[in-house]
Amino acid sequence: MATLGDIGLSAAINILSALVFLVAFAILRLQPFNDRVYFPKWYLKGLRTSPTQSGAFAKRFVNLDWRSYIKFWTWVPDALKMPELELIDHAGLDSAVYLRIYLLGLKIFVPVTLLAWAVLVPVHWTNSTLKLSDVTFSNIDKLSISNVPLGSQRFWTHTVMAYAFTFWACYTLKNEYAKVSGLRLHFIASDRRRPDQFTVLVRNIPSDPDESVSECVEHFFLVNHPGHYLTHQVVCNANKLADLVKQKKSQQNWLDYYQLKYSRNSSNRPTKKTGFLGLFGEKVDAIDYQTAEIEKLTKEISVEREIAINDPKSIMPAAFVSFKSRWGAAVCAQTQQSRDPTVWLTEWAPEPRDVYWKNLAIPYVSLTIKRLIIGVAFFFLTFFFMIPITMVQSLASIEGLQKRAKFLKDVIEVPFIKSFIQGVLPGLVLKIFLIFLPTILMIMSKFEGFLSISTLERRSASRYYLFNFVNVFLGSIIAGAAFEQLNTFLHQSAEDIPKIIGVAIPMKATFFITYIMVDGWAGVAGEILRLKPLIIFHLKNFFLVKTEKDREEAMDPGSLGFNTGEPQIQLYFLLGLVYAVVTPLLLPFILIFFGLAYVVFRHQIINVYNQEYESYAAFWPDVHGRIISALVISQLFLMGLLSTKEAALSTPFLIALPVLTIWFHLFCKGRYEPAFTHYPLQEAMMKDTLERARDPKVNLKAYLQNAYIHPVFKNSEEDEDENDEYGRFTGEMELVPTKRQSRRNTPVPSKVSGGSSPSSLPDIQESSLP
Amino acid sequence: MATLGDIGLSAAINILSALVFLVAFAILRLQPFNDRVYFPKWYLKGLRTSPTQSGAFAKRFVNLDWRSYIKFWTWVPDALKMPELELIDHAGLDSAVYLRIYLLGLKIFVPVTLLAWAVLVPVHWTNSTLKLSDVTFSNIDKLSISNVPLGSQRFWTHTVMAYAFTFWACYTLKNEYAKVSGLRLHFIASDRRRPDQFTVLVRNIPSDPDESVSECVEHFFLVNHPGHYLTHQVVCNANKLADLVKQKKSQQNWLDYYQLKYSRNSSNRPTKKTGFLGLFGEKVDAIDYQTAEIEKLTKEISVEREIAINDPKSIMPAAFVSFKSRWGAAVCAQTQQSRDPTVWLTEWAPEPRDVYWKNLAIPYVSLTIKRLIIGVAFFFLTFFFMIPITMVQSLASIEGLQKRAKFLKDVIEVPFIKSFIQGVLPGLVLKIFLIFLPTILMIMSKFEGFLSISTLERRSASRYYLFNFVNVFLGSIIAGAAFEQLNTFLHQSAEDIPKIIGVAIPMKATFFITYIMVDGWAGVAGEILRLKPLIIFHLKNFFLVKTEKDREEAMDPGSLGFNTGEPQIQLYFLLGLVYAVVTPLLLPFILIFFGLAYVVFRHQIINVYNQEYESYAAFWPDVHGRIISALVISQLFLMGLLSTKEAALSTPFLIALPVLTIWFHLFCKGRYEPAFTHYPLQEAMMKDTLERARDPKVNLKAYLQNAYIHPVFKNSEEDEDENDEYGRFTGEMELVPTKRQSRRNTPVPSKVSGGSSPSSLPDIQESSLP
Repeated sequence: MATLGDIGLSAAINILSALVFLVAFAILRLQPFNDRVYFPKWYLKGLRTSPTQSGAFAKRFVNLDWRSYIKFWTWVPDALKMPELELIDHAGLDSAVYLRIYLLGLKIFVPVTLLAWAVLVPVHWTNSTLKLSDVTFSNIDKLSISNVPLGSQRFWTHTVMAYAFTFWACYTLKNEYAKVSGLRLHFIASDRRRPDQFTVLVRNIPSDPDESVSECVEHFFLVNHPGHYLTHQVVCNANKLADLVKQKKSQQNWLDYYQLKYSRNSSNRPTKKTGFLGLFGEKVDAIDYQTAEIEKLTKEISVEREIAINDPKSIMPAAFVSFKSRWGAAVCAQTQQSRDPTVWLTEWAPEPRDVYWKNLAIPYVSLTIKRLIIGVAFFFLTFFFMIPITMVQSLASIEGLQKRAKFLKDVIEVPFIKSFIQGVLPGLVLKIFLIFLPTILMIMSKFEGFLSISTLERRSASRYYLFNFVNVFLGSIIAGAAFEQLNTFLHQSAEDIPKIIGVAIPMKATFFITYIMVDGWAGVAGEILRLKPLIIFHLKNFFLVKTEKDREEAMDPGSLGFNTGEPQIQLYFLLGLVYAVVTPLLLPFILIFFGLAYVVFRHQIINVYNQEYESYAAFWPDVHGRIISALVISQLFLMGLLSTKEAALSTPFLIALPVLTIWFHLFCKGRYEPAFTHYPLQEAMMKDTLERARDPKVNLKAYLQNAYIHPVFKNSEEDEDENDEYGRFTGEMELVPTKRQSRRNTPVPSKVSGGSSPSSLPDIQESSLP
Repeated sequence: MATLGDIGLSAAINILSALVFLVAFAILRLQPFNDRVYFPKWYLKGLRTSPTQSGAFAKRFVNLDWRSYIKFWTWVPDALKMPELELIDHAGLDSAVYLRIYLLGLKIFVPVTLLAWAVLVPVHWTNSTLKLSDVTFSNIDKLSISNVPLGSQRFWTHTVMAYAFTFWACYTLKNEYAKVSGLRLHFIASDRRRPDQFTVLVRNIPSDPDESVSECVEHFFLVNHPGHYLTHQVVCNANKLADLVKQKKSQQNWLDYYQLKYSRNSSNRPTKKTGFLGLFGEKVDAIDYQTAEIEKLTKEISVEREIAINDPKSIMPAAFVSFKSRWGAAVCAQTQQSRDPTVWLTEWAPEPRDVYWKNLAIPYVSLTIKRLIIGVAFFFLTFFFMIPITMVQSLASIEGLQKRAKFLKDVIEVPFIKSFIQGVLPGLVLKIFLIFLPTILMIMSKFEGFLSISTLERRSASRYYLFNFVNVFLGSIIAGAAFEQLNTFLHQSAEDIPKIIGVAIPMKATFFITYIMVDGWAGVAGEILRLKPLIIFHLKNFFLVKTEKDREEAMDPGSLGFNTGEPQIQLYFLLGLVYAVVTPLLLPFILIFFGLAYVVFRHQIINVYNQEYESYAAFWPDVHGRIISALVISQLFLMGLLSTKEAALSTPFLIALPVLTIWFHLFCKGRYEPAFTHYPLQEAMMKDTLERARDPKVNLKAYLQNAYIHPVFKNSEEDEDENDEYGRFTGEMELVPTKRQSRRNTPVPSKVSGGSSPSSLPDIQESSLP
């Protein structure tokens, strides 16, 4: 058991490492050299140009202005200054709402912390149960529920507090749900014309022996949506073409590298080996070889492009159908088309950027089978992943290596290598698995057949959360691998499981405090440093970059990884809610995490990340649901804990809590979730009418004709496309540039704050429209 | 433990009582006197008139034709002769599909029984485990799994059989789901024009200070469904008016009674007391008093009618909105209208007959609160209903009575009364509760706020099934009240619960065999006798009937009680599936139940029942889901049982079964359920186009104007209304009468059999249209 002193030491170390990261960031970000790593968002928006273009040579790489170093902390107020509406405008609704998760954490836990410290800490502290056995217990436990004697009347406080915390959390959650769904609807309503407003994705088009897919779609919608149908685009299977294009790009990179190498040192032409990874095979002239390869690929691509467009076999039974009005599209997306509910499936088309093209042609039956397979696979992954890991670990142990690889015997006996194998290797195997876990989960979601990147990420996030819950949360509380827990759960009664866990919870408080500091504090501070993109950018810059456009491509702004980030936040919600009543000492640590993460991610969203897609905060129901489940879990464990404390009188009063919480969830689901799944006809009609009045002669057909073309076909006209893709931004940017003054530092937010209430959103947006 | 002999005796008794019922029915139904009790359906359809009108006096009451007695069993082939399509035409789709549940029972259990007897009975019988302890085990147990020794390799047979039975059941279920959903869509497609095809029920209309509800509805739909909206009817709160009308009817009955009494014995005018139940108060002339009462009520009714129509306070925020086309209605019913998902809620309007008027104005929040309350109440009802019952029972015991009612002491001491109280009273209390249970569940569903009678019945059926599962099935297997079971379940591990139940299952086989015979065989035979309607009809006939119209009203055809009947069938499915592998001896008893019930209910549906509403077999997803849950339950219990038999090798192979079954359920849900919840646009459009071509000048507005008027407003024009309500039948009956020859006996089915495939349904229906 750790004492307060131990915790203090650990806190000091973690605070120090977090500070080191932050200071490193503060210095690195001021170097013009790194400007593209720390402010890529502004480059992408065209509001910032390379500082390397002008000035003295040294100045181009290192910032010699000492005054800017004094103000190194200004990024914090700068990050906080931009008002939310401008943030939505700047980075999209997804990012702005993602930040609200951290804010929600603060909103829930600040009052909870204050109340817990005002009420529960004195109640715990003024007992003396643990004095007798001072050896195994520490001061931290004096602050926890363990210090209250068995059967004490003080447990009433915990019951009352559990109610208070639940009601506060639910109240905040409800407000937040209302706010986010309002923001979403307003954003959709005030947004400019977008192709996905008019378009519906139709899947599982039944094959017809007499008609092509395209004709079939046209006839079906002309008959069943007369007066609304406008045009459609059939989906082609361009997966092979996309692969070829990707290969070509990689070869082009190598060519650039060799050419740059040659231009720097023109005395010897670079060579390479043609075999595996460039390690084996014939040695050839690298530039010639790459040029030939690229030519070959270019030919293949043009052949494949012909096939993808003209071969009827490459036409997939799916299409993007566009309508004359938003109303028509809203109707088609929300209704059932055919009497056979497995064909002519319609749903809102995701944004063109958000479409996951590979999955557009999976038939219904194989989709359900894939779901089954993935369900079973995920179950085994969660509960039995330790078995292969342990096997690999035993292989990688000294004894394992000695047995299997006798020729290595001498090497292993070297003390340094031996200690490395013993100390690091087993942990490393696990660590590598955990690093690859989000990727594995993403692959599983892709296999399952979801159609948009946003859905893929949401699904992966749910799975990652479940994995974390079982393996990090439960795994830490009840020591032992997940499959051992599974065994325990099968053998324990429904009443005993919360008891077993409930009893263990107070004892693990110190572990989780350390976990929060390492994973939360230092992790978030590491996030802002962007060490990996920093290194990669400079490597690329050195080896590949020739033109300004190359440099543009070498920037990797990245995007918010919803599938990894959100489950992490949820773990903190879970910890906070579980420990709020049990060990209030843990709460300030969570508060610091939420505060720090909020500032850091706000900075990153403003200056770095460039979202791949916009899902209009479609993830909020998931976020809400997981916090509710954390609430219910905390209540069940508290019941288990209190029932072992012989608090026979107060425990039954807790039974109503989970029932009420689940009911609250159902209420919110009915009240707010439809805003995230349906597009109300009233809104669609309003928007249609407005647009018709404002812009009566718009040629919608031309606008929608090529909106949903496979990205690989846009390749030749790549530049215009990118402009198209960010059209929404660049279009609306017309008056934004005038707001920005500072191009050197983090931009100062505009003075047009516009208030923070969502009701003023449409006015602002309206006025920014032509 | 019962021996085979005991079972035989019990079977003999029950077969005998069933036979007595059937013979009594066969005789009673031939008496012209009872004609209206046993063939009311034909009277309602106008195809049969009172035989009492003509012939000799004796002949009018008793059938003296001895030849008809010889053919007393002919109702069985008669009931089976009518082809399904004609049955759908005659009694509606609901009834026809209800019969398919029994047929499904036969389809599943005939092959299962054959296989089980061919394979499992020999496997069980050829063991000799139970020989040693012959005292506690009987021959029945020799046929059950108990006779297989621990750890025997023979348990592989059971594993294989469990797979075989599951696959067969799923295969049959899938076919049946496909068939029923096909029937439903065909019925809807081939059906005549109905108001509910064009109408959508709109609830939670937001109040507007400037507009009345009616104006508000009109504006909203004119704006948001332009070109589709036709007309609407606002719902009035006529609950009080309906009460008054009901009162008037009851007073009218009393008046009729006294007038009849006076006309039979004109020497003294009947008198009655005005007080409570006619037992106390002033003595007055009954005919004058009733006439005055009726006059008073008539006045009140006309005042109340004015209020209900004209007072804005009695206008409820709900309306039936009609559209110009089925397409428009289908679109409106399936989409979300407003950005606030709790207002402007739209759903398919139920049939006018099916509307449950009282619940049309419950706001969203109170609806969710009501759901919570009923959820909790049902939990307590299921698990704790025995507590009040036991309390009443203890009150009703000898000691209880002696303590509380000392003045009764002498009465109680009479031996006959004493034994009555001891033997019958406690059982009677429970029996009364169980008789009222469906009513209680129905009241709960009504409180919950469902909008149509069909939904109310479906909901009550789910609850009744759960109640039966916990209290009849589990309650019989693990002896003890439900709350004791709850306690057991909380204290046992997830692994032990199936074991405990699994072990108890084979021991309860004889109990359930007896249960099937008493509840199933004798119950079904009693059903056909219609003892209660028989008595009530003759009482009414004697005391109230003056005119032919009165006699019409005295008939009580009743309807299929889905909320009580279906859960009973489901219990047999559960028993059959659970015992199929364990004690195959039980299966023939179930087969006889399904066969007998099928014949009896087919007869009742053809000759007696008159459905209140038509829901187009909307209950099938529930039926399917409950059979699936019975399958999963049977698999879990079998796993529990086998794991105690030390069949360590074969048990793990069973784990895949529930997973596969649940997956199958999800597959079916996605594949077939939408047919029961949505109206596909393609169908709607097809039907619209057809109708427009056939009947281009139809005045839809006039047709829909008063379709959804509260039944109480139709009172004055009652006769026409009734015609209206059965319009679909009477309209289509035009060519049916020529088919019927026999008016005395069960009608002979028509020769136009039309095949049994659903594909021929539209043709027949089409041709019967004008």
